[in-house]
This record gives sequence, structure tokens and C-alpha cells, in this order.
Amino acid sequence: MDYCFGVDIGGTSIKMGLFSRSDGLLKNWEVPTRKGSEPTLLLRDISEAIELCLKENGIRKEEIAGVGLTAPGPVSEDGLLRGTVNIGWGDVYLGKEAEVIFGIAPVFVGNDARVAAFGEFTFGAGKEVNSLLMFTLGTGVGGGVILNGQILAGKTGTAGEIGHMTINPFETISCNCGKKGCLEQYASATGMVRIAERFLEETDKASSLRKLEKVTAKDLWDEAKKGDELALEITEYVSRLLGMAIANACYIVDPEMIVIGGGVSQAGQFLLDMIQRKYAENVFPHCRDKKFALAKLRNDAGIYGAAAMVFEK
Amino acid sequence: MDYCFGVDIGGTSIKMGLFSRSDGLLKNWEVPTRKGSEPTLLLRDISEAIELCLKENGIRKEEIAGVGLTAPGPVSEDGLLRGTVNIGWGDVYLGKEAEVIFGIAPVFVGNDARVAAFGEFTFGAGKEVNSLLMFTLGTGVGGGVILNGQILAGKTGTAGEIGHMTINPFETISCNCGKKGCLEQYASATGMVRIAERFLEETDKASSLRKLEKVTAKDLWDEAKKGDELALEITEYVSRLLGMAIANACYIVDPEMIVIGGGVSQAGQFLLDMIQRKYAENVFPHCRDKKFALAKLRNDAGIYGAAAMVFEK
Repeated sequence: MDYCFGVDIGGTSIKMGLFSRSDGLLKNWEVPTRKGSEPTLLLRDISEAIELCLKENGIRKEEIAGVGLTAPGPVSEDGLLRGTVNIGWGDVYLGKEAEVIFGIAPVFVGNDARVAAFGEFTFGAGKEVNSLLMFTLGTGVGGGVILNGQILAGKTGTAGEIGHMTINPFETISCNCGKKGCLEQYASATGMVRIAERFLEETDKASSLRKLEKVTAKDLWDEAKKGDELALEITEYVSRLLGMAIANACYIVDPEMIVIGGGVSQAGQFLLDMIQRKYAENVFPHCRDKKFALAKLRNDAGIYGAAAMVFEK
Repeated sequence: MDYCFGVDIGGTSIKMGLFSRSDGLLKNWEVPTRKGSEPTLLLRDISEAIELCLKENGIRKEEIAGVGLTAPGPVSEDGLLRGTVNIGWGDVYLGKEAEVIFGIAPVFVGNDARVAAFGEFTFGAGKEVNSLLMFTLGTGVGGGVILNGQILAGKTGTAGEIGHMTINPFETISCNCGKKGCLEQYASATGMVRIAERFLEETDKASSLRKLEKVTAKDLWDEAKKGDELALEITEYVSRLLGMAIANACYIVDPEMIVIGGGVSQAGQFLLDMIQRKYAENVFPHCRDKKFALAKLRNDAGIYGAAAMVFEK
């Protein structure tokens, strides 16, 4: 029982990883994501990929301790995956279906953002801590809560959906989720661009951002680093709301570490320092000295976390 | 080992409870809280009260499974109580000190609001669930997070300080904690009165509240129940912010139940329904159907929770 598979199901491709208990990741590769109205065919594709890998590497099924799967939707603590819009499924106990199709048990399933947080916890930025909160700043804002060495899924799989915490109760524009004032509307790449555009429109202040045809989140942070005043104002504004949201989350779970990941986090230490400063301005003094770190595993966090669900159980 | 003591240290009195494992609360009484610069004398008062109780009831020390203590300050997961302003102590490992003074071990220590939540979880509103979040609406707003049958203390003891989550990033008036826009500024008894006064000042709308010399939170909810339009507007306003804060908390921990306690909660089912409605407007559809309940144990939640720390460990 020295091997396992970590499988990260994405919208366009499935990332596969073969792990050994002693040596970690041995091999990783991708297969295309088949879209359809139910997950059976997709699970068969994964099953085929597993069988082929076992054959190629001379590993018997009996040597596999289990499979970890990520899913692009909320997974409740009893393992129910709720209808995932991206791929077009209804509600399904994905793990149980997968066990039958793979002929391997157990199969653990977790929400992709939560599993990525678990990957950072076990193999990445959070290796040395006992609890963490991860904020993934990408197209949206995802997250994961790791407490007592475990993913916190929550009763309905909603624990970790930090992108949809209301941070501005007076927002007039709607989030993709239908609510108004979600963190995601300010702290995702898309949200930062929206705020940047608003600032650029509402003021006449000179800014290197005005020279760009279309501002991206990367542009915004690049110009802020170079000292552009308006870019700095905008990054301070979004970081303040993000810092508040992190502080709010800490008033609920108070973890040992905050991990910032996702595409936007490539702005690096400059971004991390600004967020940490805004966080510290919004919590009690005895809670200010919290560890902040950038995510380390990038796009592999999912397969690492999926493997960890098997090996760390 | 069939007995334990649950002790709830308050600003003016110490609530004491003798519990048996089989029959629950056998006897409860109070002793005055001694104020001073270090906790030794106060612990001696508790020790005396325990000794007297044992003698009067013919119980030997060997039959005591332990003592649970609440403390009016944050207690970190390793048992450190941070300087408690109300009583005038510095940082102290209160449990360890108490074990020496009482001659009884173990002594468990938890923050008072968290322990009260644990009381509701084990003996009160949350007896049938596995996880809950409690919001205590009193002079301030306190709270507690119960996950996996345990109090979540957090790295620095801050888990559950939900009264200081920022719910309005644009507030100009400061909270007692120094920050601006804390939930407590809207959802505590004091906060509700502040908002009511603001509404009364900013509008000419007729209201039965105008007949009162000084509006209290109880008046506000009483008049809202009677259908006073402005009182309804104000309760809707504060309930919306509270509902958002509860939704935000659920996006972090997603518990099975929300318990509302504290003096303000005596407004009863009317208040609970309004808060639950505002909560539901601010979460994903699959998370809307959460159990909401009023606290049951009132002022005894502390001693029940303290006893539960001993018996449920």
C-alpha cells in the first residue's frame, strides 16, 4: 500500500499524479476533461489512465492505498458533490461511484480549492504548521480551511468559500453569484481590474496605467511596485478589503498561517507584505503576529492535496 | 471520578456548579469576584468554595474528574489566558495555576463566550448537532465555534471573536476595540440603540419609539413586533448586517446550527426569524437551509460548558 494517485479534475484537463508514500510525486501528466451530463465517462477516462500508469510502471492494484480526487464544486462532509456547473453534473457521491469504476478503494473527494489548500499544508508553504487558511486569488477567489491536520468541508461543503464573504454591504453591482459586495468583486484578478477601471475613471490623477490599452491585475501590481501613485492607491484599496476579510476569517478560526495563492499572488512578496499589513490593522494586537506565506506548489497543489487525502487519513 | 465542577468567572460574581456524570447539575451557587493584579487569591476563593461543597456533600476529592473554568479573555489552544482587562490580570496559564491551588487535576480553561457556546452544544440548544456557531448578543457581541465536538480556541485564542469582524468597512465611528465597523457596533444591545438613535435623528417618520425618553434594545424589538414601521426598518437594518456576518462565518466553517443568545435574544422567535431570513439572503442556495435556534441555558451556559470541558474530553 505504498502508492496512491492524486487526481485534479479541471474544466479543460485532468491533472494526474502517481505518488509513493516514501518519495512523494513520482510522475505527473494530464488527460483532457470530457464534458457531459454525468460523471461516469469522465471517471472511466481516469480509470483508464490509472490502469495504463500501473501497467507501465509495473505496479499492482493491491499496492495502491487509494485515490484522491478534486471536484469543481462544494463537497459536503459526508462526501456529496453538489451540481458542478462547469462540467454539467448534478448532485453525486463521486467517491463511491469512482470506487466501483476504478476497482480501487478508498477514493476521497474534496472541493478543488480546499484540496489545493491541503496540498500547500502537507507539501508546500504550510508544511511546518498545524492549521492554515488559504486564499486563492485567481479569476475568482477560492479558499480552504485546514484545521487539526484535516480539510474542513463543513455541513454542506461551503467551508472555505471565502470569495463570497460579503465585505461591502453597500455595493450596488452584483457578483457572479448574484449577491452584492462579495470579496471576489475586489480581490480576484477580475475584481482588481474592475476597481482599477473605476479609480481611473473617477480621478484625473496621472498614472502609468493610463498608457495601457487594457489594465490587467499583473499590470496593476507591476506599476504599484514601480511606485505609480494611483496604482498604489488601488492596490492599497483592494488589499485593505482583503486584509479585513482575512481578519474576519481569523476571528472565526484563528489559524497558525495564512497562505496566498492563485495567479494574482505572483506579484510576490510586495503583495504579501501589503496584505499582511492591512490584516494587522484589522485584528486584536495579540493576533497580529500571524505567519503569512505565498503558495509554493502553484498548479500542482491539487494533485499534491489529493494524494495527501489518501496518505494523511 | 463521577463528579466535576463547572466554574464561570464573571466580573462581579463567580458562578459555581457541582455536576455528576449521570445526573448533570446537582447544585449551583455564587461567590463574589475578588479583583486584583494576579489570579492567585481568586483561585483560592474558588478552592475554598470547592472544599466546602465537597465537605457538605460528603464527596472525596478522588471522586472529582476535574474542574472547568471560564475566563473573561482569550485563551489560546495551548491554554494561555491573555491579559484580562476586566479583572486586571496579565498573561497566565490559569489551568496550571489552578491545578496546584485546587489540588485537583485536570483543570480546563476556556474563554467565557466559547465555553457558553460549548454549554449550549452539550446541554442546550445544540444537543442534537455536531457543530455550531453561537452569537451572544449582549452589551457586546461574543461568540464561540464548536467543531467536531470541541471548542475551537485557535492559535491565539481569537477563534469566536465574531463581534469584531468588520462588517462595514466605511464606518467612521470607532468600536471599543479601536477598529471601525465591527459587528458589535450594530448587533450588540448598545449598537442597536446607537443605530436606532441615528435613524430617529435622520428621519421625521412617526414612530412609537419617539415617545420613549431613552430607547433600549428591548424597546426597539418590542415596537417592531407591534408593527411600528421605523422600529421594523431599524431591526431589519441591524439584522441584515448580522445575517451577513453569520453568512460570512458560514463561508469559513459551515456548521450544522447557528445559536443566538445573550440579552437581546430574549426578543425571541421574531428576532430569530428575521436574522435567519437575512442570513439566507446572503449565502449560496445549498447552504440556506441551516438550523437556527435560540440559546436555552441563559446565564447557566457558562457552568454547563465548563463542566462539559471535563466530562466530554
